[in-house]
Amino acid sequence: MIDLVKNYSVIARRAKRSIIRELLKLTEKPDIISLAGGLPDPATFPHEEIKEIASFVLDKNSSSALQYSSTEGNTKLINEIVKWKQKEGLNISAENVLITSASQQALDMLGRVFIDASDPIIVELPSYVGGLGAFTSYGAKMVGVPMDEDGVKVDLLRQSLENLKISEEHYKLIYLVPDFQNPAGITLSEERRKEVIKLSREFETLIVEDSPYRELRYEGIAPKSIYELDNTGNVVALNTFSKIFVPGFRLGWVIASPEIIKKLVVAKQNMDLCTANFNQCIAAEFMSRGLLEPHIEKIKKVYEVKRKVMLDALDTYMPKHEELTWTKPDGGLFLWLTAPSGIDTEELFTKAIEKKVAYIVGTAFHCDGGGHRNMRLNFSFPSQEQIVEGIKRLGSLFEDEIADRKM
Amino acid sequence: MIDLVKNYSVIARRAKRSIIRELLKLTEKPDIISLAGGLPDPATFPHEEIKEIASFVLDKNSSSALQYSSTEGNTKLINEIVKWKQKEGLNISAENVLITSASQQALDMLGRVFIDASDPIIVELPSYVGGLGAFTSYGAKMVGVPMDEDGVKVDLLRQSLENLKISEEHYKLIYLVPDFQNPAGITLSEERRKEVIKLSREFETLIVEDSPYRELRYEGIAPKSIYELDNTGNVVALNTFSKIFVPGFRLGWVIASPEIIKKLVVAKQNMDLCTANFNQCIAAEFMSRGLLEPHIEKIKKVYEVKRKVMLDALDTYMPKHEELTWTKPDGGLFLWLTAPSGIDTEELFTKAIEKKVAYIVGTAFHCDGGGHRNMRLNFSFPSQEQIVEGIKRLGSLFEDEIADRKM
Repeated sequence: MIDLVKNYSVIARRAKRSIIRELLKLTEKPDIISLAGGLPDPATFPHEEIKEIASFVLDKNSSSALQYSSTEGNTKLINEIVKWKQKEGLNISAENVLITSASQQALDMLGRVFIDASDPIIVELPSYVGGLGAFTSYGAKMVGVPMDEDGVKVDLLRQSLENLKISEEHYKLIYLVPDFQNPAGITLSEERRKEVIKLSREFETLIVEDSPYRELRYEGIAPKSIYELDNTGNVVALNTFSKIFVPGFRLGWVIASPEIIKKLVVAKQNMDLCTANFNQCIAAEFMSRGLLEPHIEKIKKVYEVKRKVMLDALDTYMPKHEELTWTKPDGGLFLWLTAPSGIDTEELFTKAIEKKVAYIVGTAFHCDGGGHRNMRLNFSFPSQEQIVEGIKRLGSLFEDEIADRKM
Repeated sequence: MIDLVKNYSVIARRAKRSIIRELLKLTEKPDIISLAGGLPDPATFPHEEIKEIASFVLDKNSSSALQYSSTEGNTKLINEIVKWKQKEGLNISAENVLITSASQQALDMLGRVFIDASDPIIVELPSYVGGLGAFTSYGAKMVGVPMDEDGVKVDLLRQSLENLKISEEHYKLIYLVPDFQNPAGITLSEERRKEVIKLSREFETLIVEDSPYRELRYEGIAPKSIYELDNTGNVVALNTFSKIFVPGFRLGWVIASPEIIKKLVVAKQNMDLCTANFNQCIAAEFMSRGLLEPHIEKIKKVYEVKRKVMLDALDTYMPKHEELTWTKPDGGLFLWLTAPSGIDTEELFTKAIEKKVAYIVGTAFHCDGGGHRNMRLNFSFPSQEQIVEGIKRLGSLFEDEIADRKM
């Protein structure tokens, strides 16, 4: 075999296997309780409905369901999405929508269409690892802005934007996961959303609103989406069926101005021509039968309980220490734990695996090397019993660590 | 809305909508007979089997079928592919295989992993438009090497490789569609395959063997695949279920050395995490029941007849002119027509649409601006009646053109 080193591209040399992926491998042993992944609970999958609809679609129109779709996506699915989102207040039509092979493809597509090597972009601290991965592979120079309980700190965001303007550079985009953020579980307040929009106009920066969990709210009132609040085409909104329907179909959609959608369509032509039409037909039929919204209500009930189980277990089993805290998300799949200073969750990871419990290290979500005191805990996939037992094991681990350090 | 021009990436500014796509829109009117597309005949889709298997998969294992798959792909599907290809003589195991969201994603992935802006690569003249599109978007500098009836001319290929070596540059890869090429319908002879392999070693260049039609041979004996003949890891082979099963699942696979597969897996993590597991489960079950190979035999019978219908119609309806010729492919979906000098198929296209018949202009497949005397004709999608009537219309068009020019 020839020596390939000189044949690889800069992107290939830059790309690293995802830390999460490598850690997840360690957690696959059957006796380990994994609070690490981010998978939906398969008990929520509407398999009977999918079975019935798959048959229906194949009986009714297999010639087109099994054929290529257009790059933009299946017309019926697009129209169903438009109807649904219009009902929620979005001012959109079919030309604002592009079907993607789930959100990760949309992130990759945005990297491709907006980011050249060394282009500065803004991300949250912490931020979604799949977004960081996609943008890194295009060579983005990521600047992280910290969050508090109301989301990204807009005063620091302004500072970052101004600093770069002084040196006559330009942020291509601001990447936000505003609803029950992965990993932090935090929701960006409506007031801050408005301020971010103001900043995006002032500094001519696109906002990418990545919102896979928005529909999974278990309490409180949803702030309006950034896309709705802006309504001028400066926001690209990413959505997915992975958490509200099934991930195994790889279906998502982008909402953006027709101008941006056109650019994304050209990119998608080169990326995969089109998303699987069979899956799109099933999802479209599921929606047109009015099944999606009641289905989301069912999922919410399952996860609301699991969230409570995890929060209760944390209250019960975590040692009391003023620096040991966790977020209490109103929705989504994750919460974010901060360990007392002096405890490094990367170092702790091996001990956790010995205690047969796993989490994702906070550093995986930080573009700036931070996050050493954090871990992400998932409550959607493990069973209620596993959540309790997992948190118990983590609690005893923290007790040992705190005792060792005489904190 | 902000002015986006300065926000777009170099790739986005470079990308053009595909010519084919734009032309195909013109051909969508119901009274136009389109010999332009490259779609499989939906009559060949095994919808009853898919329906039954979809139910089976959902009954048996919906929890995993509707969940995320690993990035590498569904293990059962990989194993089925390995068994099948081993039987054909390939020396591979599971670590040589990556499931992709069909071949276009594999092409994009190869661009990402091997091509930096301005990197020289070699393509055939003509070449597959989806490959040209993917590689162009990464900024590849494409050098075209002409073909004759035995495929790419290896003496000219050597010349290109040597020319570049003199200037101390390096071709990253040679992109070949060696079996019933899209668009030309030509198959690369086994002798030439061996010579190409020799050249790839001498000049340390990777070979990309894109072979979506290999299984669709209607006569003659298949030369060994380039991957099999090489057997040293210098070949990346691309395969797809689109033409031998259904395109609406978006399923394909790459066969390559484990080292390259690992690089591609990292790229795929950032591109779409994984391919739809539901579709992979159905394809795996279809294969494990032994249905794929007999199904391919059925498809071959349909297309063999259609090919004959088109070749007979060409013999019957095309005016006799020594410069008006077409290929007689042993398989695949396309043939390639060359018009007499003086006739430009781009100029002819409008007249063809007036006569209610459509084809793809040869220039779409040329990286060097050539192909003005060529057109690609598809025989898989149109009905037998449409093929005859379409060729009749084209024949009368050529008669007019030749008479006008007093050729």
